[in-house]
This record gives sequence, structure tokens and C-alpha cells, in this order.
Amino acid sequence: MRLYVGLVHYPVYNKNHEIVASAITPLDLHDIARSARTYDVRRFFVITPLDDQQRLAKKICDHWIKGYGARYNRHRKEAIELVSVVPSLEGAIKEIARLEGEPPMVIATDASKQGDRGISYKSAKTSILENRVVVLLFGTAWGLDRAVINGADYVLAPIFGKKDYNHLSVRTAAAITLDRLVGDFE
Amino acid sequence: MRLYVGLVHYPVYNKNHEIVASAITPLDLHDIARSARTYDVRRFFVITPLDDQQRLAKKICDHWIKGYGARYNRHRKEAIELVSVVPSLEGAIKEIARLEGEPPMVIATDASKQGDRGISYKSAKTSILENRVVVLLFGTAWGLDRAVINGADYVLAPIFGKKDYNHLSVRTAAAITLDRLVGDFE
Repeated sequence: MRLYVGLVHYPVYNKNHEIVASAITPLDLHDIARSARTYDVRRFFVITPLDDQQRLAKKICDHWIKGYGARYNRHRKEAIELVSVVPSLEGAIKEIARLEGEPPMVIATDASKQGDRGISYKSAKTSILENRVVVLLFGTAWGLDRAVINGADYVLAPIFGKKDYNHLSVRTAAAITLDRLVGDFE
Repeated sequence: MRLYVGLVHYPVYNKNHEIVASAITPLDLHDIARSARTYDVRRFFVITPLDDQQRLAKKICDHWIKGYGARYNRHRKEAIELVSVVPSLEGAIKEIARLEGEPPMVIATDASKQGDRGISYKSAKTSILENRVVVLLFGTAWGLDRAVINGADYVLAPIFGKKDYNHLSVRTAAAITLDRLVGDFE
């Protein structure tokens, strides 16, 4: 598998549908890193253009990789080691292309609209298991800017359970998506 | 579906394998309530014997159900309304029996050991879709006390992805478990 995850803090929507750079949520880094490690993701990109937010994210990572956290909980260390803090989505995609020798298939996730480039979980899973380079993008705050969705190769269907309610946290949505795409169970 | 979820704060293990009452993590309440709402869970029991922790949990819920939070985000209100704060696991099971007119099938989750009462996700799903009353138990901290596991009717298999690593947060483990048992996607 050559699977990557990107957590986008810019450009995303705020509650009033304005495009903003959202703040880092430390628990998102922890939870998504742990899920990424579980599902054998190669690298988890935390994407924010803001210097102070990049510093915050790196400080959290250093604590768990080199600081007290590394001694306190080595499982957390193994997860947090997957994190790369980068200033832009373009930078993340360039870095994946450099690491893999080819550009990734970009699959965006969206809680509401799929447009005309929808992809089923089954099809996306097939691509991942065929060893295609794939990056899954998750938006923080009120979701990915329309321009990111439009620039992606594919858009995954929103996660619905049994009700017409899809307001999961990005942490849990990322975990469910990874399980649907990579999980194996009876 | 007659599905219930219990988040157990006592009795659970701490890092040193001692039995303790863990502290409420507000984000667990939010995330698991949102997942519960998504997957049509009837009630989400937050189980803690500690008075101050019960008060904290109820304060969080009140904020989102009656306070400013209810006006700020009605989707959160719909999720948090599923929460019941109760002092013991026995109390939660009694309450489910009262609501449903029969005792629930108790299915525990555990990150490591399944013992001799293991149940597959497929079998558990069948029971849920056959409209059996089922409660899923999740442990906080370092997991459910052995006595709770031994007292359950069944134990679900641990969540493994592609690696020999299963150190998910309880928030994400609950979300993945609900998706495996109730989710429906292509």
C-alpha cells in the first residue's frame, strides 16, 4: 500500500461559509496519527500555512517523539512519527510525488456534496490494494474549500449511518474512512 | 434497531494495570454522541460512579442541550441529547431492560483479548439487524476490567488494520465499531 492522508486547515470553510485557516486541534493529530498507524498509512500531512500553527503542531510532535511523551508511551511515538507538518496542499502532493516517483491520485472527502467525480469506497479500495499512490484529504472546520474538491481526482461519498445525519468529527470520519478502505474483518 | 452504547469509566485499568475510575474526557462525549446519532443508537450511557465527574458530564450536556451550545449548533444538540449519565454499568443495563422490556445482549469490546466468548462483527450485525436489544461496551483509559469482559455475553474482536498495532482512541474505536456493525456503503 502506498497510502497517504492529508488534514487540511487551509483552505476550509468556517460556520459562515467563509474561507479561513482553521486552528490546529491537538487531539486531531493524535487520533488521526493513531488511525494512520493502524491502517499502514505511509505519512500523515498536517497542512497549515500559519507559522504559529506549524510551530504548535511540531511542538506536539516533538514532545511525543523526542520529549517525555516518547518515554511515557512508545505506541504514541510510533503514531506521531508519521506526521509531517507542511504549509500547503500543493507542498504535500509534491512531497508524495518525490517520495513515490509519481504523483498521487487525490481523493477528497466531503460531508455533503460529491459532484460528478464521485468514487465508491469499493473502487477506491481497489486502487489502494492495487498499490496506486493515493492521498486522502480531510477538511477541518466546516469542510474543504470547493476549489480543493474541484481540484481532486475523485470525491468519496459522505459517511451516512442509519439516519440522515452526518456530522461526525473529522477524527472519527477519518477513522471510519480508513477502515472502509483498508480494514479487514469478519 | 434497538442498539445502545455504554462508555465505561469504572471499572477500567490504568497504565499500571490497577483498577480505577477514569476521568471524563469531554471530547469522548461529543464524538461518541455524534457517532451514536449517525448510527441510530437509542441511548449513549456515560458510566461513572464519581459525583463530581457525573456533574461535569451533565454540565457539558446541559450546555449543548439547553445553553448557548443549543443555539450555536443544533446538530450537536441532537447528538448530545442521546447521553445519559449513570453511576454504574448495572444501572445502565437495568435502564435498558426497563426501556425495552427485556435485558440487552451485552457485547464488550477489548483491544487485546477476546477469550472464549468472541463474536464476529458479522454475527453481531445480524443480531442487531434482527432487532435484538444490544448494548456495546467501550472502556476508557487502558480498557475494561477483566470482570466486565467476563460478565459480558460476547466480546468483539479487536480492531486491526493492516499492521500489528491497535492503539486507537476510544472515540475512534467506537466510531469504527459502529460503522462495522451498522454502516452501509458501496
